[in-house]
Amino acid sequence: MILITNDDGIVAPGIKALVEVASQFGEVLVVAPDSPQSGQGHAITLNNPLKLRKVDIFEGIDAYECSGTPVDCVKLAKNVLLKGKKIDLCVSGINHGANSSINIIYSGTMSAAMEASIEGIDSIGFSLLDFSFEADFEAAKFYIKKIISSVLNQPMQDCKLWNVNIPACGLDEIKGIKVCRQGNGTWVEEFQEGIDPRGEKYYWLTGKFVSYENDDLDNDINALKNNYVSIVPSGHDLTHYAQIKNLKYLENI
Amino acid sequence: MILITNDDGIVAPGIKALVEVASQFGEVLVVAPDSPQSGQGHAITLNNPLKLRKVDIFEGIDAYECSGTPVDCVKLAKNVLLKGKKIDLCVSGINHGANSSINIIYSGTMSAAMEASIEGIDSIGFSLLDFSFEADFEAAKFYIKKIISSVLNQPMQDCKLWNVNIPACGLDEIKGIKVCRQGNGTWVEEFQEGIDPRGEKYYWLTGKFVSYENDDLDNDINALKNNYVSIVPSGHDLTHYAQIKNLKYLENI
Repeated sequence: MILITNDDGIVAPGIKALVEVASQFGEVLVVAPDSPQSGQGHAITLNNPLKLRKVDIFEGIDAYECSGTPVDCVKLAKNVLLKGKKIDLCVSGINHGANSSINIIYSGTMSAAMEASIEGIDSIGFSLLDFSFEADFEAAKFYIKKIISSVLNQPMQDCKLWNVNIPACGLDEIKGIKVCRQGNGTWVEEFQEGIDPRGEKYYWLTGKFVSYENDDLDNDINALKNNYVSIVPSGHDLTHYAQIKNLKYLENI
Repeated sequence: MILITNDDGIVAPGIKALVEVASQFGEVLVVAPDSPQSGQGHAITLNNPLKLRKVDIFEGIDAYECSGTPVDCVKLAKNVLLKGKKIDLCVSGINHGANSSINIIYSGTMSAAMEASIEGIDSIGFSLLDFSFEADFEAAKFYIKKIISSVLNQPMQDCKLWNVNIPACGLDEIKGIKVCRQGNGTWVEEFQEGIDPRGEKYYWLTGKFVSYENDDLDNDINALKNNYVSIVPSGHDLTHYAQIKNLKYLENI
């Protein structure tokens, strides 16, 4: 059983492409948000009830739209729809836009995959570096098929989460796969300011991504810039281990 | 300048307690959500404009309520309200409830602090292990004052984010501070099912936390269980470094 979700919503072309690839490997279940949820990070719905509705949009495939966040989708799939059933793999995406570098923190696509990995399920988030709804997913599908095939034959070990990003270019231009670390970069942000129809001031987030990396190919930012598919093995232990010893003085303040 | 935020909303008693402590150290600015945002994780608002409203609820203190998520609050504070001004420290909380172990991933309180740390600002999330609005913050305030005083005298080095949790007991029962790692545990979840007023089925998240740790005091779960204040130095690089070498075979699939 392969569980499929995303953050762009159940009607996004990216999840359709992912369903086409994943369903070649056996039984799949789609549970995805009923509206776009980009930037939802690891949000969960605590103060409201959630709805699940069966939808018939992928031929011959069981699919549900969910009123919650991407992480809610995974929780509902595991605990309600697939209760007690083994999930061999969770795939999330294909995201419309990059989730390399620091974007893993903000991404609903990656948070959904992380939620499954926290539950001990092998999980992969797939993202294409093209924001548009008309993005070409053909090269992405080629590599996703290889990667799903590999992980089903050779399941993950200690690390249950891979962050896979695919450059926005033709298949013949992609140089291959790089297994690498999360690149160091951040968003330099500005807010577009305006006045709403009721005369109140508003602020709307905008910004541009800035890389702090030099030219090494050991990180996802540069692997992608050089037309490689990047795979970053990722986790959910945020401890900065090197600092524990240095901060022991805090036990005596 | 100390920036103060939270995820329980600007009228929660926890942020009032934090304002009381932090304002003893100099100028502060409060920017916090206008409604409860527990479990919002690192969500940001991309598809909607945000509102900021100046509120007069902390005597003599500049404070704004924000229509967005905890992370939005930090972005707006840094890029709009404090544009170009140095922020010496960002403190988030005091959260009503634990943010130890895996809860750091779901917590809006910790995500707000993490957002400031991504921007290079020394940041601390404070949480008290008591969910109630009537929680007693006296012991928490004692330790938070010590910790803020220490970090202002000796700023953070490589690691710009501390996750501080405080046990729910009297000051005389707290044994001290432990600097430790993120404990290994997860939520075992169930969904309460029901029928809404329009006859539609709903699912409402519930569950209980399960620790996978034995008795060592080197992690926050057990430090707290033994009445220590826990401090976990934390980061935003999710790379599982040990696995990069093991996964190099994926470059040849």
